[in-house]
Amino acid sequence: MAYGIVTPQLAKFDTDLRLESGRILGPIEIAYETYGTLNADRTNAILVTHAWTGSAHLAGRYNEEEKRAGWWDEIVGPGRLLDTDRYFIICTNVIGSCFGSTGPTSINPKTGKRYNLSFPVITVRDMVNAQVLLMDQLGINRLVCVLGGSMGGMQALEWATQHPDRIGSAVILAATPRPSAQAISLNAVARWAIFNDPNWKKGEYRKNPKDGLALARGIGHITFLSDESMTTKFGRRFSARDGQFDFFGQFEVERYLSYNGYNFVDRFDANSFLYLAKALDLYDVSLGCESMEEAFAPVTAPLQFFAFTSDWLYPPAQTEEMVEVLKKLGKEVDYHLITSSYGHDAFLLEHETFTPMVQTFLENVEK
Amino acid sequence: MAYGIVTPQLAKFDTDLRLESGRILGPIEIAYETYGTLNADRTNAILVTHAWTGSAHLAGRYNEEEKRAGWWDEIVGPGRLLDTDRYFIICTNVIGSCFGSTGPTSINPKTGKRYNLSFPVITVRDMVNAQVLLMDQLGINRLVCVLGGSMGGMQALEWATQHPDRIGSAVILAATPRPSAQAISLNAVARWAIFNDPNWKKGEYRKNPKDGLALARGIGHITFLSDESMTTKFGRRFSARDGQFDFFGQFEVERYLSYNGYNFVDRFDANSFLYLAKALDLYDVSLGCESMEEAFAPVTAPLQFFAFTSDWLYPPAQTEEMVEVLKKLGKEVDYHLITSSYGHDAFLLEHETFTPMVQTFLENVEK
Repeated sequence: MAYGIVTPQLAKFDTDLRLESGRILGPIEIAYETYGTLNADRTNAILVTHAWTGSAHLAGRYNEEEKRAGWWDEIVGPGRLLDTDRYFIICTNVIGSCFGSTGPTSINPKTGKRYNLSFPVITVRDMVNAQVLLMDQLGINRLVCVLGGSMGGMQALEWATQHPDRIGSAVILAATPRPSAQAISLNAVARWAIFNDPNWKKGEYRKNPKDGLALARGIGHITFLSDESMTTKFGRRFSARDGQFDFFGQFEVERYLSYNGYNFVDRFDANSFLYLAKALDLYDVSLGCESMEEAFAPVTAPLQFFAFTSDWLYPPAQTEEMVEVLKKLGKEVDYHLITSSYGHDAFLLEHETFTPMVQTFLENVEK
Repeated sequence: MAYGIVTPQLAKFDTDLRLESGRILGPIEIAYETYGTLNADRTNAILVTHAWTGSAHLAGRYNEEEKRAGWWDEIVGPGRLLDTDRYFIICTNVIGSCFGSTGPTSINPKTGKRYNLSFPVITVRDMVNAQVLLMDQLGINRLVCVLGGSMGGMQALEWATQHPDRIGSAVILAATPRPSAQAISLNAVARWAIFNDPNWKKGEYRKNPKDGLALARGIGHITFLSDESMTTKFGRRFSARDGQFDFFGQFEVERYLSYNGYNFVDRFDANSFLYLAKALDLYDVSLGCESMEEAFAPVTAPLQFFAFTSDWLYPPAQTEEMVEVLKKLGKEVDYHLITSSYGHDAFLLEHETFTPMVQTFLENVEK
C-alpha cells in the first residue's frame, strides 16, 4: 500500500567535502527523506539514489493536499518492493541539485551570496561521498542495498566500487560505465541551449532562463524516450489547432516537448541542470583506474543490473560490458535485459517489469 | 577524372508555381548547374537532387581558385559514375533554399522586399514541381535517372510517384517514406533553437541569428552521424585546452559540434533552414493517398534503394517498408543495405560502397 505522509529533512555538516576536482565544498547541507523505521542495530537501511532531475521526495506526500506523490512512490510502502514494514528507506537529494541539498542555487556561507557559477564542478563520486557523510551522521555503517536508475545507477556503482564495505548489495538500472560520445553530444547541445539564452547571464540570473532551459529539457526529453514510444503516443499527428502549412504549426510531438519543457522551468534550476549534465558526462566508473577490471576489483557486494532494450541513451551493451567484466572477476552479478519500448525512461515507467526480480535478489542477499 | 570548371546558371520563369498548400509562389527562379553535354535527342540527362543544406554546386569548381569542389564531386566527371562523357548531369538548388533559387531570402517581386516569413511553407513535392518547370524549359521530356540521398531521395521518390512518365529510373539513398516521430522531434528542437535566438527577430533579421542557427546545426549534425562514428573520431576525449573540471570545459566532440555549427552560420540562412526542416518533417510519400500501395501504384521506372546500417535518422527499416510495398506491387526494385558506421551521412562519405551497384543499375536501365 501507499506510504502516506512524509516529512522532508535537512542534514547539516560542519566538515567540508573534498571534491574530485581538488576543490573544497562546505559546509554542506543534504536534503533527505526516510520511510519506515530504522531498527535498533541500524542494519535495515536501503538508499535509493535519484536521476538527473530527481529529488529526495521518493515517495509519499508531504500533506493530504499534495497532488502527486514522490517520484517512485509505486515501489515504496508496506508490502511493496521497498517494504517500509521491513526496511528503513532513505533518499537524498544529490549535491549540485536544487531540491534542498547544497548546489549552485545555495547561499555560499563564506560569501553570503548564491554560488551560481562559483559552485565547483562536481562528479557522481562527490555526490556519493556526501551521502556517506549522511550515513555516518545517521549511524548507519552498512546499507542493505543501494538502488537507482540512470544517474542513480551511477551512484550505486560508486558505492559498490568506492565504498564496498558500506553496502550489502546494489541494484543498478539503465546506467552506463561512462556515457558515449553521442550521449555527451546530446547533453552538449542541451547545455548550449542554456548558454544561448541571454537571460541565463552566465549563471547570474534572478529568474530561470526559461526559453533556454525549456529547450534543453526538450532535447533531454527526446533522449529519455524512444522512437517507438513517441510513434505510439504521437506518430506524425499534426496539432489539431494548427494548419499543416502554418509556418509555426506544430506536430503533436513537438507541442508535447515544448509544453513539458516550459513546465520544467517551474521546477528545476538552469545552473543545477548544467552542473548535473556535466557530472553525467564526466562519469566514468573507471575514473582513476587503468581499466574497468581494476575499477571493479574492490567490489564485494552482489550487484544486480537491468538494461532496457529501447534505451538508446545508455544502450544495453554498455551495461553488458560491466556485467562481463564482473563475471570475469568472479563477482556475484545478476543481469536482466528488459524488453521495453519506453526507452531510457522505462526504469521509471515500467517498474512492474523488474520489481519481482529485485525482490528475489534482495531476499537472496539477506539470507 | 575530376570535372573541371563549371558555370552557375539561373533559370527564370514567368509562370507561378501552385503549391501543395494551395498558395501561389512566383515568379520563381531556379539556380542550377550542368555537367557534360545534352545530346541532340535530349535523352541523356540525369538529375541529381540535393539534401537539406546542399546546393546546385554538385561538382567541379567555379574557377581555379575555388578551394573546395562541389558537394558530390567524387562521383561526377569523365569515366566516373555520373559520366560526363555520356550523360548530361543537372543539379538544381531546391526552392526554399538560399543558394540562388527562390526562397525566404529572395526579394518578393510583388512587394520589393525579402520574403522572410511571408514565404509560403513548401513541400518536397513543390520542390520537384519546380524542377519539372526547369526540365520543360530545357526541353528535356524524360530523365535517364533522378538520383539523390536524404531529402534528395525524397525528391527522387516524388519524381517516381508524381511524374512517372518523366523518368527512366531513380536511385534513392538514405531516405524515408516519412520521417518518424523521433526524427520530427530532433528537427523540432533545432527549429526551437533558432526561435529562441533574439537575433532571429521572427525572421526579420539582417544578420543570421548565429547562436541559434549554430545550435540548430549542432543538433542536426548529431542526427547525421552515429554513436559509432563519433566514438571512433572523438570518444570521450576532453579538449586538451580545457580542464576537465572547468565549468566551460568541453569534450572534443562538443568543441567539434560548436566549431562546425558556427561555420555553418557563414554559409546557410536561418529562415531557409527552418523552411527546409519543415519540408522534411512534412514529407510523406503517401501524401494525398490512402496507402503506400496507392502512392506507389503509378511508378513505372525501376527504382534502386540504398539504406545504411548505422543511419538512425532514417533507419533501414523505413526504406525496407517501401521496398516491400513495391515488390508486392510487382514493380522493378533493387535494394541494398550497406554496412557502414557513418550514420545518415554515409551516403555522402562512402560513395565507393554503392557506386558500383548504381553503375550496374544504370547500365541495365539503359538496355
